Amino acid sequence: MAKLVVQKYGGTSVANVSRIMKVARRVVSVKRAGCNVVVVVSALGDTTDKLIELAHKITPFPNEREFDMLISTGEQVSVALLAMAIHKIGVQAISFTGAQVEIITDSSFTKARILNINTKKIEAELKKNKIVIIAGFQGITVNNDITTLGRGGSNLTAVAISKVLGADVCEMNTDVEGVFTADPRVVKNAVKLDVLSYDEMLEIASLGSQVLQPRSVIFAKKFNVPICVRSSFSKGKGTYITQETKAMMEGMVISGVTYDQREVKITICDVPDRKGIAARIFNTLSKEQINVDMIIQNVSRTGCTDISFTVPKTSFNKTLQTAKQIVKDVKAGKVVYDQDIAKVSIVGVGMKSHYGVAAQMFGALAEKNINIEMISTSEISISCVIKKEKALIAVRALHKVFGLEKISKTIKKEAF
Amino acid sequence: MAKLVVQKYGGTSVANVSRIMKVARRVVSVKRAGCNVVVVVSALGDTTDKLIELAHKITPFPNEREFDMLISTGEQVSVALLAMAIHKIGVQAISFTGAQVEIITDSSFTKARILNINTKKIEAELKKNKIVIIAGFQGITVNNDITTLGRGGSNLTAVAISKVLGADVCEMNTDVEGVFTADPRVVKNAVKLDVLSYDEMLEIASLGSQVLQPRSVIFAKKFNVPICVRSSFSKGKGTYITQETKAMMEGMVISGVTYDQREVKITICDVPDRKGIAARIFNTLSKEQINVDMIIQNVSRTGCTDISFTVPKTSFNKTLQTAKQIVKDVKAGKVVYDQDIAKVSIVGVGMKSHYGVAAQMFGALAEKNINIEMISTSEISISCVIKKEKALIAVRALHKVFGLEKISKTIKKEAF
Repeated sequence: MAKLVVQKYGGTSVANVSRIMKVARRVVSVKRAGCNVVVVVSALGDTTDKLIELAHKITPFPNEREFDMLISTGEQVSVALLAMAIHKIGVQAISFTGAQVEIITDSSFTKARILNINTKKIEAELKKNKIVIIAGFQGITVNNDITTLGRGGSNLTAVAISKVLGADVCEMNTDVEGVFTADPRVVKNAVKLDVLSYDEMLEIASLGSQVLQPRSVIFAKKFNVPICVRSSFSKGKGTYITQETKAMMEGMVISGVTYDQREVKITICDVPDRKGIAARIFNTLSKEQINVDMIIQNVSRTGCTDISFTVPKTSFNKTLQTAKQIVKDVKAGKVVYDQDIAKVSIVGVGMKSHYGVAAQMFGALAEKNINIEMISTSEISISCVIKKEKALIAVRALHKVFGLEKISKTIKKEAF
Repeated sequence: MAKLVVQKYGGTSVANVSRIMKVARRVVSVKRAGCNVVVVVSALGDTTDKLIELAHKITPFPNEREFDMLISTGEQVSVALLAMAIHKIGVQAISFTGAQVEIITDSSFTKARILNINTKKIEAELKKNKIVIIAGFQGITVNNDITTLGRGGSNLTAVAISKVLGADVCEMNTDVEGVFTADPRVVKNAVKLDVLSYDEMLEIASLGSQVLQPRSVIFAKKFNVPICVRSSFSKGKGTYITQETKAMMEGMVISGVTYDQREVKITICDVPDRKGIAARIFNTLSKEQINVDMIIQNVSRTGCTDISFTVPKTSFNKTLQTAKQIVKDVKAGKVVYDQDIAKVSIVGVGMKSHYGVAAQMFGALAEKNINIEMISTSEISISCVIKKEKALIAVRALHKVFGLEKISKTIKKEAF
């Protein structure tokens, strides 16, 4: 049976007519190589932003059902144009909206969850030897209302379509060559990873990389959908994201170094050291829908502690207000904050079977005279909050100390 | 029971955000006056043209299914934005695509015919006291493919929706105050008509007026849907188009004067005067999908005739080529043409019950030294082809001779 490839193209990949033609030729080449191809497409370039702007000119708080009705048109335009472009090359193709293929979602407009996908229509068209093009980012409720899936929604569509069709691979075509051991703009000898586990990708995505949203990786992991992150503009093989293998575990200890400058550190000083007071603080923050990332608590003076935590910069004002209210409520000292921080992280499944990784990380930072302000760890990652101005130095030092410039050769042979 | 008003707004009425807000306020005022309101909207300003341009950048002959998939997004944007605008005023509204309300059409993409409309969803939302907003110009096949209805499609949607809901009136909100006795830019004292029969409107539409496409008038007549043509931008009462009444017949003889400069006259000279030769000529033209409008045949010399006919300027090149081929085939003389013609027409149901209307028309033209080159008549109209440079003089003369500047007073009292 022919291999089934699901390809997703983001907005920059179809930003204009000449790029749409390029994507068409790329899709056709896969088809001509003997594969069945399903393509998931995002809206052209900044179309979605323009539609949102239009809505906001009318009202700052548009009705969410109508908002989805509006912005879902972006992808409908893309799929139609891509189908035309493929026809022009002389190959059969057919486009579908989310509603038409019955991508059934719940009715959480603007952030809907996929409940079910009907494969009948897609499979029927594939059998007719057509390339099937599906609008990303959108679905439909059982009540026939159009929904959208939120940030990274097209990736989610691609993964979900891959799952229900049992695709051999779900290609995320994007504007980078794949996932790198570190941001290549920061670390010159950063290496593109050939393979990565879902968990590693998830950590990398959560810890600052913009390549893939965590949501689609979680979904892919859950249903064991093999993902390939690759460039829309080159023929590179990209990075495969798949289940953890023994080869990965026994290969390099660390797969990548990430950094994130989008958080801010808030400290509530001199919090009375009473039972349940931390719970009370973080409950209050959670009620305000503030996403707290890292937390540390230090003894400050007798009967009091300082509690520090980080939140996204976008929540800074709200957090500061809330924290000041908390200070009053629990009779704490004052609130201080630091906007000039960075979170530097190392990620790798190899960590599980190696000792001393944390020590090696802290040592490397110490050697560069970098002070660690906060630490958090997961099974396959360690993150440190440091001063923002030291972020790039830290990333380079960590990339070097874990020998990441050599990673490609090591893993490639073992994993594939 | 509350009155049910269907309002249609064209592209210029929703060309930008401030106009959308205006339309929203207008719709809400009708709702607040106690009516149920269903709104049919076209795409914003030149959106459809821009989408077509985009398609043509990819291919001059886009696949028609994909073309409809593409351009139907224009109306989807409009309905969502109008719903948001109405919400902003504080009134409940809900938007639907053609697919969502199940405007079922055949599968003649780009020029589909409406087969059926499901009223369930619309009626359910009206019952919830919401303003229902429906995307014009589009439908869906039983196979769930998106279709569009062709030129004037939104008007057709509005009329069809009015029919299935049994609306009290179908308002065509446009950029003119209504239907006038003549183009007000040409005849200064042209009068807005308060009422007009379907047949008159049909003739006026067919004879050059841009106010309504004949297609939606035919549909409205067939199902007896009362139409009102009015301005989106003012509070004028517009022109009611309805069944012929006795009052109309006994009112003014003529309701309007139109002119059309979009045709060209072709003459095939010295056609051998044999049986069936005219049929052969017009069969050939029809096979080339050329729409012939007026035809006259004159004896030229013994055993020969000249056959003249008019066609739209857009078909001129094709017609000329075809005519030259015909000359060869039937051994006629030559082809001559005149691009500088105009068709001037008078329209009125009153004509049926009055004698001498044609004579009065020809007399008025003769008085202005205008030569009549072709004549055609229907039950309620008479058209003359004249030199283009005489068109405006003719229109003014006819408007005067039939006393159209006084028409409003006469009809208004009798019809309403």
